[in-house]
Amino acid sequence: MVGGGQGAFIGAVHRKAMALDGAFELVAGALSSTPEKARASGRELGLPEERNHADWQALLADELGRGPGDRVDLVSIVTPNHLHFPVAQAFVDAGFHVVCDKPLVHHAAQADALVAAVRARGTVFGVTYNYGGYPMVRQAREMVRAGELGELRKVVVEYNQGWLSTRLEAEGNKQATWRNDPARSGGAGALGDIGSHAENLVATVTGLQIEALCADLSALVPGRTLDDDANVLLRFAGGARGVLVASQVNAGIENGLRLRVSGTLGTLEWWQEEPNRLLHHPIDAPARLLTRGAPWLHPAALRAGRIPPGHPEGFIEAFANVYLGVAAAIRAHGRGEPPDPLEADYPGVEDGARGVRFIEAVLASARSNEKWTPVRPA
Amino acid sequence: MVGGGQGAFIGAVHRKAMALDGAFELVAGALSSTPEKARASGRELGLPEERNHADWQALLADELGRGPGDRVDLVSIVTPNHLHFPVAQAFVDAGFHVVCDKPLVHHAAQADALVAAVRARGTVFGVTYNYGGYPMVRQAREMVRAGELGELRKVVVEYNQGWLSTRLEAEGNKQATWRNDPARSGGAGALGDIGSHAENLVATVTGLQIEALCADLSALVPGRTLDDDANVLLRFAGGARGVLVASQVNAGIENGLRLRVSGTLGTLEWWQEEPNRLLHHPIDAPARLLTRGAPWLHPAALRAGRIPPGHPEGFIEAFANVYLGVAAAIRAHGRGEPPDPLEADYPGVEDGARGVRFIEAVLASARSNEKWTPVRPA
Amino acid sequence: MVGGGQGAFIGAVHRKAMALDGAFELVAGALSSTPEKARASGRELGLPEERNHADWQALLADELGRGPGDRVDLVSIVTPNHLHFPVAQAFVDAGFHVVCDKPLVHHAAQADALVAAVRARGTVFGVTYNYGGYPMVRQAREMVRAGELGELRKVVVEYNQGWLSTRLEAEGNKQATWRNDPARSGGAGALGDIGSHAENLVATVTGLQIEALCADLSALVPGRTLDDDANVLLRFAGGARGVLVASQVNAGIENGLRLRVSGTLGTLEWWQEEPNRLLHHPIDAPARLLTRGAPWLHPAALRAGRIPPGHPEGFIEAFANVYLGVAAAIRAHGRGEPPDPLEADYPGVEDGARGVRFIEAVLASARSNEKWTPVRPA
Amino acid sequence: MVGGGQGAFIGAVHRKAMALDGAFELVAGALSSTPEKARASGRELGLPEERNHADWQALLADELGRGPGDRVDLVSIVTPNHLHFPVAQAFVDAGFHVVCDKPLVHHAAQADALVAAVRARGTVFGVTYNYGGYPMVRQAREMVRAGELGELRKVVVEYNQGWLSTRLEAEGNKQATWRNDPARSGGAGALGDIGSHAENLVATVTGLQIEALCADLSALVPGRTLDDDANVLLRFAGGARGVLVASQVNAGIENGLRLRVSGTLGTLEWWQEEPNRLLHHPIDAPARLLTRGAPWLHPAALRAGRIPPGHPEGFIEAFANVYLGVAAAIRAHGRGEPPDPLEADYPGVEDGARGVRFIEAVLASARSNEKWTPVRPA
Repeated sequence: MVGGGQGAFIGAVHRKAMALDGAFELVAGALSSTPEKARASGRELGLPEERNHADWQALLADELGRGPGDRVDLVSIVTPNHLHFPVAQAFVDAGFHVVCDKPLVHHAAQADALVAAVRARGTVFGVTYNYGGYPMVRQAREMVRAGELGELRKVVVEYNQGWLSTRLEAEGNKQATWRNDPARSGGAGALGDIGSHAENLVATVTGLQIEALCADLSALVPGRTLDDDANVLLRFAGGARGVLVASQVNAGIENGLRLRVSGTLGTLEWWQEEPNRLLHHPIDAPARLLTRGAPWLHPAALRAGRIPPGHPEGFIEAFANVYLGVAAAIRAHGRGEPPDPLEADYPGVEDGARGVRFIEAVLASARSNEKWTPVRPA
Repeated sequence: MVGGGQGAFIGAVHRKAMALDGAFELVAGALSSTPEKARASGRELGLPEERNHADWQALLADELGRGPGDRVDLVSIVTPNHLHFPVAQAFVDAGFHVVCDKPLVHHAAQADALVAAVRARGTVFGVTYNYGGYPMVRQAREMVRAGELGELRKVVVEYNQGWLSTRLEAEGNKQATWRNDPARSGGAGALGDIGSHAENLVATVTGLQIEALCADLSALVPGRTLDDDANVLLRFAGGARGVLVASQVNAGIENGLRLRVSGTLGTLEWWQEEPNRLLHHPIDAPARLLTRGAPWLHPAALRAGRIPPGHPEGFIEAFANVYLGVAAAIRAHGRGEPPDPLEADYPGVEDGARGVRFIEAVLASARSNEKWTPVRPA
Repeated sequence: MVGGGQGAFIGAVHRKAMALDGAFELVAGALSSTPEKARASGRELGLPEERNHADWQALLADELGRGPGDRVDLVSIVTPNHLHFPVAQAFVDAGFHVVCDKPLVHHAAQADALVAAVRARGTVFGVTYNYGGYPMVRQAREMVRAGELGELRKVVVEYNQGWLSTRLEAEGNKQATWRNDPARSGGAGALGDIGSHAENLVATVTGLQIEALCADLSALVPGRTLDDDANVLLRFAGGARGVLVASQVNAGIENGLRLRVSGTLGTLEWWQEEPNRLLHHPIDAPARLLTRGAPWLHPAALRAGRIPPGHPEGFIEAFANVYLGVAAAIRAHGRGEPPDPLEADYPGVEDGARGVRFIEAVLASARSNEKWTPVRPA
Repeated sequence: MVGGGQGAFIGAVHRKAMALDGAFELVAGALSSTPEKARASGRELGLPEERNHADWQALLADELGRGPGDRVDLVSIVTPNHLHFPVAQAFVDAGFHVVCDKPLVHHAAQADALVAAVRARGTVFGVTYNYGGYPMVRQAREMVRAGELGELRKVVVEYNQGWLSTRLEAEGNKQATWRNDPARSGGAGALGDIGSHAENLVATVTGLQIEALCADLSALVPGRTLDDDANVLLRFAGGARGVLVASQVNAGIENGLRLRVSGTLGTLEWWQEEPNRLLHHPIDAPARLLTRGAPWLHPAALRAGRIPPGHPEGFIEAFANVYLGVAAAIRAHGRGEPPDPLEADYPGVEDGARGVRFIEAVLASARSNEKWTPVRPA
């Protein structure tokens, strides 16, 4: 693991997600950009001294020095955004399988380079767009794929939070500070942090491609550098229309990711704060309340659950599903076989790259007086 | 009453809303644009023959021929949109109090003329933006006015329905047919029908003024003339940001009007399908679930209810509250006194005119390649 | 109308319920047990002097003195419970159609007498168990009748309120005072007021007959005379089991009437505070969220609604449905025809009598050390 | 671990719960009552051969043969009920810390013996009443303890499931078969499986002691041996009243554990299927929707969560909290110190014993014609 040391939120989530199903075990790390903190974090987590590194370059060198059977199976990159590219590039080039946090990198050119590198090496590369790991999101995706909504017409996605309603970055909050520092976070604030999750959720469930968009980005908290509020009109290939809202100044709102997808045959609604449910409104029948674990779900949704219906699973379980998908891909890679798509169900480097192109297009639109800004396809 | 005869949906709602509290009694009418149907409708509703007219001109002439004590107290206009202007103008000019359905008229110039006429005559003029009649919407308005949300930053309003997911207007559906006929409906489809409700809800609760907007209007059902899907970015005076979504192609969705308003101190959420509740998320305390009728509500919300908390009131009751407000204004007018704003709580001709300007701006934006289209203030 | 004058809660509800659909118009009354208050109440409501009576005996005498075409169509009895019997008996005996509030009378012997009187005269007699007027309750009833739940096994009904959590009857609250006075309320407190609604809801939806019960009644607020908390185990003919809870000391709860019915094929759940929804859990398919007004509902549910799905109807509308049913029965009676059961859908005197027998059995059980107390069938 | 091998549901849950936080690692086992299956299960889970035992006696002997530093820290017993007593007794007597599934044992006498043994040895003994591990249940408990509900008056707990609506035990379902076999399950069916969870939830949150109860137990599915439906009236020391419902024949219901507790100052409502929320109705203020992770929660609730508010945690996390509590107690035991009650927050052997006495009293009441059956205190 690179990053995720003391005080980091997401590093601990990655570790619990790996531990839950025993998908991976933490055996080596360079857990902070500060060498002392890196080492202290590793000691706290029980890493052996010789695999507890002061920086990621040392981790890479040490791993390369080990025999194939003794190397890590996977490198998990959970640093602030600006380090994603160099670290991921280095480990991919060295032939390691990688899981990287989102947004993948700062610029589309970097994303292209990473996609090319992964293709060249043929390694496994996952991006922790974790919300696609929820069983009912997978159910939604499969229903759309199976045509149960008919032809898609309208998508509304909102990701609202309130935790940046005050200027936490001026008060020493670690998360808030790097996320509002363009050097580490990239040019996008709320857009990059949660807007990219919203984009991925739309892409995952609908499979639609955004052709053009029109964005209004604002920093509504006085003194803030990066956007904390993003509103985007979407035009999809094929004619569907959409709206994406991402805001971190909805004071009092916790983690309000909501998706609504309408097609000619019905509408789906999913809300992250009650993730075990998916509401399906067919055009010609009563609404159906689908629940995780029910036997009539699609296999892709069913296998993403661990326990019976009515026994809630949550955020960590969804996160763990990304790791399970990556693990299945690595096992298939080890056998030299193509992965079973039902098992190796995880967002890959292309999903990460598409997210970066989306962010770039939103930033360009926000600066433009033209109504529509095209989004470059892969 | 003008319009609202056989087969009309909203005419019956107006009549039940008046009857519920005995605010008004139907005594005369010209209930359809077809003379025979007008007369038949009036007979069905028990109108006396001499006040059951074949057209609104006859109604007006007959009323003018009566002595002041024998005239109707109020003319309620519930025709398709294109008749709102001539009928309202004629009755206002003749000194009658009027309630008119929304959107008020087709063009801002007509709206201006009507505002001027009402001001000139000093009569009462209500517009049935009925959603503002819900007690918990009034509670939201009062909480914003009292500063309980702090300075407003973000508004998201959605009004989604599914009933126009198929081309009902090609199948003889009366409602769908006139609403998709520009000559009767005006240039706006879903935008005019429900988008205008959404605009009014935002204006009522927040008091914010839209300075500029950016709209994407579509007719997503093949063959449809007017928009059935509207997505609008909003910029408010003072810096708040917003999004308005109105769609009638969310297949399977019934009457999904939702409002979310965030300020520096918290967020409010209201959903029309559960109208007796208002969810308040303060920034520094647990969410509060406010319910209609509770003693701690603002008087404007409390007096808009009839029965104790937990005994649901609905759409007709909210509609009736508009009529109660108009009735209070007429009583005050009769006494030559200024109305008590707590009692005479109803949307007026200025609200209607603002709605028309909003629609015009959205239509202009939808045709424009410029990102932002200004909205003319009153 | 007898009773329901100044300060009464339920009288106003009855009047709004009648007015909403124009089912009945208030033309005569004896609106209070205090002659002056009766007359003052009538004047407030616009009753003509000659039909605004000081007591119900005067009302009866006056009506009997009128010709058949000039008499009231219906007498609505909304007094405290102890007057239900003498007033209802007198008007039934005199050949009037009657609507009476619940619980019908104090004792089963009175109930039997009233049933016999109504049968003897052949008049229409409705009891305002208003919750059965909700469209989705009727939908539940029809689904059970149609066998959609299979054979019924389990029923849980709860009716919880919090308004008597303090000793309001000692503070002059009019409602609380008579309801806690055995002379006026009968031997049952919460049991009579809301437990009887719960019993009726069960009987209406399930059609099951309670064979035996076991009750625990308590006055949990110190100093209170009658029960404010009732918990009852139910055994139904045919083997189904049930639980009925009625409590008015659930501090902070508003009007929490909930029903859950399970059969071999599925479960229904309905909650009065969101009355436009009915949740159906089939044993072999996802839960279905049925909503008022949807075209796939049973005609008995559809005709109980006024406006499209998604436009909430509430308590008053449900109450009005009882009056609409009674009005249809009276019309059929006038034509000398049997009523159409779809139209004349209202709780009758037998339902009222069954409720009284239920209350008597609960009171007997509460005093007994035997586990099971039988309930006498009709 | 004893039990929990191939095909068992709850064994896997225990293992994931331990793994999530790294509280314990599975190092030895006797995973089935069938030696071959025990060994096969252990191999599947990666147990070393020498610690993968054919039966629990062999496990015990092997562990006793190891030095103190090489022994397991904890024995987790996840067998069918009838083995709880002999296995737990043997390991406790041998000085091991134990976690045992619920219901603890078949008879109160066994429970007493186990309590005495644990007290005599001074070891740690946890019972996996896992629902008390939910953060919002702990919040409810702390609010009651702090007097925020005032004096308690009424408790309603329901635990409804539908999975035994058909006679699964006749179709070879492993879970259903042993649970309906009195030799393995004890005299209680649904009562023992889920009724005991309901009892524990009441005891945990309210601290109230059941003085007497009146029960109706039924086997509603034809041919079933043990109860699948339990309805119990409760009388608590101090005068509060309650109802407990546990049923496994609510066809279509998943895992519906609900608790409502009312006191003089308000009411709390919690529902296991949305476990991150707790609804608090104060008597004199709007309802409060408390959510997991919010900073204003009690420390006992806050420390039971892992991730920020709005990021749902679920059933496994709650289960893991029981193991975390046991781990803290074992650490304190190792230091020879009394455990910190905030950390060592788990149901102990006395809770298990109280649950057994409750079940015995319900079974006695169900056979009795007396209304009230006393419940023996500890």
